[in-house]
Amino acid sequence: MDMSQPVNGRISKLRSIMERNGLDYYLVTGTDAHLSEYVCPHWRTREFITGFSGSAGSVLVGMHEAFLWTDSRYFIQASQQLKGTCLTLMKDGEEGVPSIEEYLRKNASPSSRTGTCAAEISIRDYKEKKRLYERMGQAFVLCDDFLDEIWTDRPPLPETRIREMPAATAGKSREEKLATIREKLKEKGADYTIIASIDDIAWITNLRADDVPCNPVFLSYMFISQEKAVLFTSLYRFPASILGEVEKCIEVRPYDEVQTLLPSLSRGRAYYNDEKVNASFLSLLEPSLSLTGRDFSTDLKACKNPVELEGMRKSHVMDGAAFINAFSQVDFSKTDGTYNEIAISSLFAGEREKMKGYEGPSFSPISAFSSHGAMCHYSADEKSNASIDHDGLLVLDTGSQFAYGMTDLTRTLLFGDATEEQKRDYTLVLKGHLALMHQKFIYGTRGYQLDVLAKQFMWNEGMSFYHGTGHGVGFNLNVHEGPARISAMPIDVVLEEGMVVSDEPGIYKEGRHGIRIENLIAVKKAGRTEFGQFMEFENLTLVPYERKLIDIKLLTDGEISEINSYHEKVYESLYPFVREDARDYLREATLPL
Amino acid sequence: MDMSQPVNGRISKLRSIMERNGLDYYLVTGTDAHLSEYVCPHWRTREFITGFSGSAGSVLVGMHEAFLWTDSRYFIQASQQLKGTCLTLMKDGEEGVPSIEEYLRKNASPSSRTGTCAAEISIRDYKEKKRLYERMGQAFVLCDDFLDEIWTDRPPLPETRIREMPAATAGKSREEKLATIREKLKEKGADYTIIASIDDIAWITNLRADDVPCNPVFLSYMFISQEKAVLFTSLYRFPASILGEVEKCIEVRPYDEVQTLLPSLSRGRAYYNDEKVNASFLSLLEPSLSLTGRDFSTDLKACKNPVELEGMRKSHVMDGAAFINAFSQVDFSKTDGTYNEIAISSLFAGEREKMKGYEGPSFSPISAFSSHGAMCHYSADEKSNASIDHDGLLVLDTGSQFAYGMTDLTRTLLFGDATEEQKRDYTLVLKGHLALMHQKFIYGTRGYQLDVLAKQFMWNEGMSFYHGTGHGVGFNLNVHEGPARISAMPIDVVLEEGMVVSDEPGIYKEGRHGIRIENLIAVKKAGRTEFGQFMEFENLTLVPYERKLIDIKLLTDGEISEINSYHEKVYESLYPFVREDARDYLREATLPL
Repeated sequence: MDMSQPVNGRISKLRSIMERNGLDYYLVTGTDAHLSEYVCPHWRTREFITGFSGSAGSVLVGMHEAFLWTDSRYFIQASQQLKGTCLTLMKDGEEGVPSIEEYLRKNASPSSRTGTCAAEISIRDYKEKKRLYERMGQAFVLCDDFLDEIWTDRPPLPETRIREMPAATAGKSREEKLATIREKLKEKGADYTIIASIDDIAWITNLRADDVPCNPVFLSYMFISQEKAVLFTSLYRFPASILGEVEKCIEVRPYDEVQTLLPSLSRGRAYYNDEKVNASFLSLLEPSLSLTGRDFSTDLKACKNPVELEGMRKSHVMDGAAFINAFSQVDFSKTDGTYNEIAISSLFAGEREKMKGYEGPSFSPISAFSSHGAMCHYSADEKSNASIDHDGLLVLDTGSQFAYGMTDLTRTLLFGDATEEQKRDYTLVLKGHLALMHQKFIYGTRGYQLDVLAKQFMWNEGMSFYHGTGHGVGFNLNVHEGPARISAMPIDVVLEEGMVVSDEPGIYKEGRHGIRIENLIAVKKAGRTEFGQFMEFENLTLVPYERKLIDIKLLTDGEISEINSYHEKVYESLYPFVREDARDYLREATLPL
Repeated sequence: MDMSQPVNGRISKLRSIMERNGLDYYLVTGTDAHLSEYVCPHWRTREFITGFSGSAGSVLVGMHEAFLWTDSRYFIQASQQLKGTCLTLMKDGEEGVPSIEEYLRKNASPSSRTGTCAAEISIRDYKEKKRLYERMGQAFVLCDDFLDEIWTDRPPLPETRIREMPAATAGKSREEKLATIREKLKEKGADYTIIASIDDIAWITNLRADDVPCNPVFLSYMFISQEKAVLFTSLYRFPASILGEVEKCIEVRPYDEVQTLLPSLSRGRAYYNDEKVNASFLSLLEPSLSLTGRDFSTDLKACKNPVELEGMRKSHVMDGAAFINAFSQVDFSKTDGTYNEIAISSLFAGEREKMKGYEGPSFSPISAFSSHGAMCHYSADEKSNASIDHDGLLVLDTGSQFAYGMTDLTRTLLFGDATEEQKRDYTLVLKGHLALMHQKFIYGTRGYQLDVLAKQFMWNEGMSFYHGTGHGVGFNLNVHEGPARISAMPIDVVLEEGMVVSDEPGIYKEGRHGIRIENLIAVKKAGRTEFGQFMEFENLTLVPYERKLIDIKLLTDGEISEINSYHEKVYESLYPFVREDARDYLREATLPL
């Protein structure tokens, strides 16, 4: 479908509203009222106004010009989707490409006014932009949601059915979690906290729903003080039995009452995450009195408890067995168009669906054949869906939500025969992936310190990649979960026991091939020595590497034995759970090198 | 000499002055008026008031208590030197040890006043402390130098003879350097800069002197605008011919005129480094108009030009030849007390002195035998000087100033036989040292990203170290030179072509042994690929590793060939410069593994 006509029409309409409101520019951040990375259809404002369907990007609409800023993951996709529209693509991070503010400093008239929807920007971002624009002699102002007026068939706010995660699965009851948060409030010297982060609320309440595709969360706010806990979300979405249970410790009030009720609830000093609470709350949270910082639950939920870890392990056994069941049916020597990208990911999804506790994908699957693989976040649709009609690599990045955990897995599969270059690149990625996973480190180490381990081998051969090496992962929640991260960007977050992160280096060669290998790994304690406490990773993922892509000459004896032990563990863990007719495939895929 | 009596008396006298000035606490930062790391005897205030002779630490004197805060390098030395004094040692970075401000928050009475000498704190530090103390309900104030009144035999400010570094050695004339700085001033939109950093001034002016032991600098300030350059330093220290040359482009005025002349010189907007200009300049540099940042010269001098690099290479040939000449005379099987720590470092120093262009040590040598080696910054004096009377390791960390460069070298030498543990530890340190040195990296990489490469192998065996892995190094200037650094602490400084840093991992086992291996390495361009520009290190140091301490079983084939190629290069580079009777030793020390 050609999106350029509706997009250009919408931008014209937006300009009329801007004019009426005395604005020169309007910024669409593309997030929701909870500053989520992934949003429900109601909040897909970025896509509505540009036609671009990627998960990151900022839109700036002026009276005579309009731009989409997005990062390197989406350069190719965005330039295709913007074709024919009046929007110009700004490639974030490329040399000579200005930031939004640099653009406005140079091009906007003095005293120009830029507005954004108050609900779609965090308090911190708003304050920073306000200061910055003032220094430029311009203004940055909060507005209503201008797109709402244009978007006549806008999907309503979702109110999907709430389900309960039993404490036996969560490892801790909601009462225990509330008690811990109340302790933290005391330690901070705050009287109450307001939480806007919806995956935090799902974790605290041990509740799940399906408001956002792939993320089992529900739109809500939460208020917690020493005496009271209030959950703001639609009451109609609760089965009666769950509502009764929840109301033993948490009052439930309608979603849209949060701002009207807050003044009567809040007494004393507030604590909140000013990167997660949106700017429409600004006047309610008197800044001179309030404390800001990460939500306590963000740090608590990042460290999976032993029950959650057990659930994560079980999820990975199920996921691995589904992989084997699926790919035992594929003839990888066939490059005659028998298969295509969507068929391959559907085959895997179909086998996952048969697994107990499977709830659906944890994100939109990536199945990218040959040159498509060089686009890190390529997503096959019916139009782009490539047929596997020549020898090549397929990058398959998919994950599952299980009622008792989550997976996120990337494997690069070979159809037909590999070139020497492909084998070398695959082996360099694998060496980095193994080096990170097998590194012990002293307690206190932060993710950025370990990042180079995944890059060292490809750097020595003049190759690199530009996405993060690892992201935190939720427990039957969001596939990207803070605060832990492994990347070159320094963030002061220590790798703590129980954190689960991905380990996913890659190599992407435009027009040729892409390679990525991803396992999930959990931080655990290693020994304590005279030098202090050491930590290590437990590998969670149980899926064979692509043996035919490994160039054994590039491996050390240590690496060979790491791979062989891993494959032995994969074989033994999955054998009881794979179908009988898939056992030969499992055995062959895990043979020693 | 027992220092406790004079120290306690001085602290009493200081307290009287504090009382007279209405102060509850007095802070001695221990730096000089230029915020230097190493200071001349006039500025050894920390040692004067505590007896502690280490190069880092802060002293807080209250009416009834007095403390020295220092870091782990100096825990052992400080606790010995404070014995008998009224000072308590605060071990910076140890669990439960408060910072100065945390201590004052808990223990000082409300509205207490802490003072410090205005000349011994940077403008930035002063502003930060002022804000912090105000938030605690206390005051932080600038004072005169209270110690000056007590310190009756204080050494005068040095005025050592100025010498010229020819442009042929410096690679750039002072006129060229001034022109570049004036360009940078324009780019910044500033009208003039005031420079307080004395190694920056030595670099800009191509002048050297000996005001600070081991650092060929001279106390001075510098003013640079588009029209004018003024150097504030004693005129009497110049040989007439050099003064005449300098005055062709730089006006020279007495050191103590800087503050009186600055108002008449400065017009427009200032640019200065608020971490290097001390707080006595505060009222002179109107903060609302001025810009702050690193001195332009700091970034310029960090990237050695091709002539400087050539001088650095030559320095390392001379230094390596001196090493071979010295240690060919030592019988390393003798552990009967023939040798001692000072004799070993003196022997090496004696051979260095014979080398053309040698000017002296670039820092106080460390020669630490056996358990002394476990103290990272142990320095042998006549009392501690250990006799080599048993089998053990000697850590020798020394460096040279050459008229055309500088060296900084650590080798761990074996006397007698090694234990398996010593060999394993040495080999793990060596593996990390090699991994860092041989890593290629994409342009834009910062030092903290590479730090783990030096630690990865020892971490896997439950060992670590707590000093930086690498520091920037000056060109016939300071042995610790910013802004580049390789450590776990993130700093946003890209490793640029021409930067010279050390590569010096270690393992320290209290009461047993210490191991450190240090080479200097220079950043240079490697190839450019479709992924971007890659960088690599050129190794500068030319001294054999200790072959008898290498456990070849722990090395990969790649590492073995790295060591063998290095030793071959050492042999070929040094052969023409070592004495004839040292050639056998050179050959044996560099034989292939």
